[in-house]
Amino acid sequence: MEAETVAKAFVDHYYSTFDTNRAGLGNLYQENSMLTFEGIKTQGFQNIVAKLTSLPFQLCQHTITTIDCQPSGPASGMLVLVSGNLQLAGEQHALKFGQMFHLMPTPQGSFYVFNDIFQLNYG
Amino acid sequence: MEAETVAKAFVDHYYSTFDTNRAGLGNLYQENSMLTFEGIKTQGFQNIVAKLTSLPFQLCQHTITTIDCQPSGPASGMLVLVSGNLQLAGEQHALKFGQMFHLMPTPQGSFYVFNDIFQLNYG
Repeated sequence: MEAETVAKAFVDHYYSTFDTNRAGLGNLYQENSMLTFEGIKTQGFQNIVAKLTSLPFQLCQHTITTIDCQPSGPASGMLVLVSGNLQLAGEQHALKFGQMFHLMPTPQGSFYVFNDIFQLNYG
Repeated sequence: MEAETVAKAFVDHYYSTFDTNRAGLGNLYQENSMLTFEGIKTQGFQNIVAKLTSLPFQLCQHTITTIDCQPSGPASGMLVLVSGNLQLAGEQHALKFGQMFHLMPTPQGSFYVFNDIFQLNYG
């Protein structure tokens, strides 16, 4: 598969899981994974899932505006930069967000999230 | 130096160079560097400088809102996600932007930009 196809499939999967079954995101991280969410740093899939499931909003819907990807180097990783809108239930206006993923290959031929940085842009 | 200090120093240098001497950005890229600017892919420092200096605006000023960084893996690289505002000369409103850098170490103890993805968020 082309890198763009992999990136789009990952992004679709990530945000549909976030919006419907946030705890299921744990499968996408490993013990060395890092998340920086609005400046707060977390490491390890258990801590990352705890962070994501304890955010101060429950129902939400992500809409993706752009997906860009590049190979990250000889280890066959892939960098993905996403921009989009985050609609929280009960809020009138959607929030703009930017999120960067560094995907690393697994021995099984899939990818996991090694780096994850999320920022709201308050657009 | 701590990673955050390096990231902030890089970001300050990058955008002040962009706003005052855009051609000088070439020193920050190498032959294997990649730039995706608003979805358009470019590779190699000469092509990247040509792209950046031919953008359809001359005078501009970046204002940084957030800088986040994480180590990118065993090769001692560093991922930096920046959000901020881009004010173009003669325009009333600033544009929001998001930009991701993957910095890799040089033998001289400095860093160069291996990956660069820039996106306007049209905020």
